[in-house]
Amino acid sequence: MKFKLLNTDKESGARAGTIVTDHGEIPTPIFMPVGTAGSVKAVHQRELTDDINARIILGNTYHLFLRPGIELLEKAGGLHQFINWSRPILTDSGGYQVYSLSENRKINEEGVTFKSHIDGSRHFFSPEIAIDIQRSIGADIIMAFDECTPYPCDYDYARKSMDLTHRWLIRCKNRMKETPIKYGYKQTLFPIIQGSTYEDLRKQSAEFVAAEDFAGNAIGGLSVGEPHDIMYSITEQVCNILPKDKPRYLMGVGTPENILECIALGIDMFDCVMPTRNARNGMLFTSNGIINIRNEKWRDDLSPIDETLGGYASTTYSKAYLRHLIINKEILGAQIASIHNLTFYLWLVRTAREKIIEGDFLSWKKQMTKKVAQRI
Amino acid sequence: MKFKLLNTDKESGARAGTIVTDHGEIPTPIFMPVGTAGSVKAVHQRELTDDINARIILGNTYHLFLRPGIELLEKAGGLHQFINWSRPILTDSGGYQVYSLSENRKINEEGVTFKSHIDGSRHFFSPEIAIDIQRSIGADIIMAFDECTPYPCDYDYARKSMDLTHRWLIRCKNRMKETPIKYGYKQTLFPIIQGSTYEDLRKQSAEFVAAEDFAGNAIGGLSVGEPHDIMYSITEQVCNILPKDKPRYLMGVGTPENILECIALGIDMFDCVMPTRNARNGMLFTSNGIINIRNEKWRDDLSPIDETLGGYASTTYSKAYLRHLIINKEILGAQIASIHNLTFYLWLVRTAREKIIEGDFLSWKKQMTKKVAQRI
Repeated sequence: MKFKLLNTDKESGARAGTIVTDHGEIPTPIFMPVGTAGSVKAVHQRELTDDINARIILGNTYHLFLRPGIELLEKAGGLHQFINWSRPILTDSGGYQVYSLSENRKINEEGVTFKSHIDGSRHFFSPEIAIDIQRSIGADIIMAFDECTPYPCDYDYARKSMDLTHRWLIRCKNRMKETPIKYGYKQTLFPIIQGSTYEDLRKQSAEFVAAEDFAGNAIGGLSVGEPHDIMYSITEQVCNILPKDKPRYLMGVGTPENILECIALGIDMFDCVMPTRNARNGMLFTSNGIINIRNEKWRDDLSPIDETLGGYASTTYSKAYLRHLIINKEILGAQIASIHNLTFYLWLVRTAREKIIEGDFLSWKKQMTKKVAQRI
Repeated sequence: MKFKLLNTDKESGARAGTIVTDHGEIPTPIFMPVGTAGSVKAVHQRELTDDINARIILGNTYHLFLRPGIELLEKAGGLHQFINWSRPILTDSGGYQVYSLSENRKINEEGVTFKSHIDGSRHFFSPEIAIDIQRSIGADIIMAFDECTPYPCDYDYARKSMDLTHRWLIRCKNRMKETPIKYGYKQTLFPIIQGSTYEDLRKQSAEFVAAEDFAGNAIGGLSVGEPHDIMYSITEQVCNILPKDKPRYLMGVGTPENILECIALGIDMFDCVMPTRNARNGMLFTSNGIINIRNEKWRDDLSPIDETLGGYASTTYSKAYLRHLIINKEILGAQIASIHNLTFYLWLVRTAREKIIEGDFLSWKKQMTKKVAQRI
């Protein structure tokens, strides 16, 4: 994996770049649609490429390990082949999902024992196992196995957890060295910075990770319920420590507003279930603001969902039709809203990139943040 | 509406023809995907044209009347405009849906009072109202308001009900004459033959309807639970009475096997929720037979769903991937299976048409019926 930094904004930390992987290039800043168990929910693979222009999608190690399982993924020749997706994929390590299980997992030095949310069966993930599974999945960018702390988190726990995440990182790194790729495509490991909301811990974690000199770096443990200003200040602090010539990935973020703010702080990569999950409930992100399509207000609105964006879903179907489908619980409603929201997210980061390259990012961001955050 | 009969099979009643409407031509025999409330479930409109090559779709008057409602449909300029569909549409009259409500409806000479399945609100449909609503929906082919009898049905009820359906037909015809089209596209009324499973009643109904000389004719009251041989014998009997130069529509039928058998008896048009409803449960109709994709048998089968058919869904995605999606309740599973099943149904009637034109229908049908009916 290579990262070419094309331009850094003079008035903010925003950067425009390109990540080069064996499955193709990823312009940054980028938003990565989440394809939990091998499917970005309600969206066909060709819609991801042709309509949304997604450049990279996410897979979840925990979900893929449970279903379809590693054996089948290996037989298929990896996740790309299994789902028919030829562009890059990033997989998380399972750390976050295991953290989400809370009651149903036990952490010790060696790793995590957890119960499947599907059938209650017991499983064990260690840093080594997380790497092995991600080798079998075959994603282009794979994540270190970490512990994601909750918010709020007491200082002692945050410190101990961070130290554990650091020791696990070294074990992940070593496992990467010991194991070959399986399908002829190179894989790149990203470390994850933890330290909860504590500045000194975040500093320590960012410095530890920076010194390890990975090809890209991720910030974890944010977007777990903390106020936005804490998310922003930690992100800013960590970005100031991280090397400039490596892409920076803020995990699990966020709203369009969050994304614009964090691009300005120097983040290059984002992922979030929000555009697809909220779409299924009828919440639309548009270039004019946030729409709850279930509202009576849109009942007779025969105008396109969002003409600014272009593309099939956003310009062919009307708000009134989409409202009708969502209220009727028609699957097509979830499909249209999901394509639309992802089209919007990708439009947002693509436009941000253009503005960064043109040197016009900050004024655009200021105006756009207000616009996309408002409920209309 | 015009119907051009191109060829009648020498060895069976099968016919190849073309229905010409203001929204385009429909080659027959044809299968019409069901778009109940303005959406063929889990399928985008462009997938209906580009992938499935649907030539006409169905809408349900009862559902569309309740939601989105006639006022909005009129404001949109009719159902075609509202859902973005430029090919022909057929709407049923609401008779069948009202029949399905059983406990929640009351029939008298004037019409039917029924309770909405959505909110229990009371409504009244008469033949005149059913025509008015269908004028507002704007479908190319609209259906007479009838009573659909259940199976089994005692003789006296079947006879009285048939007579009522005949009187309602005349009222529908008169209402059609009194009311103009609303959106510049001509609409054609099809009468419905009833008479349950009784030969003398079916004869009476078919003769009554034939004498009325509509541009096309429909057979209702079948596919309601009666054995297949009764469905076939009634269909054969009625087809022998109906004029040859008008298209014949067998309502609510059926399995691929049913469709092949009834094409051979002289039916030109079919509709059924089976390909989409069963798709959502993981039942696939393929050119090799019926697949329950949930079966363990398909777990590791990385071959395409059905290569014979061509098209995106059937050839891009593997059986193992589709199985994974359906078992995981991923929306994409319903999407792929629905596109696939409809692609198969349209492939089946398109191939039947080719064989009828080539004069090779019956031998193909014999071999194909066996194939498509078997569970593999």
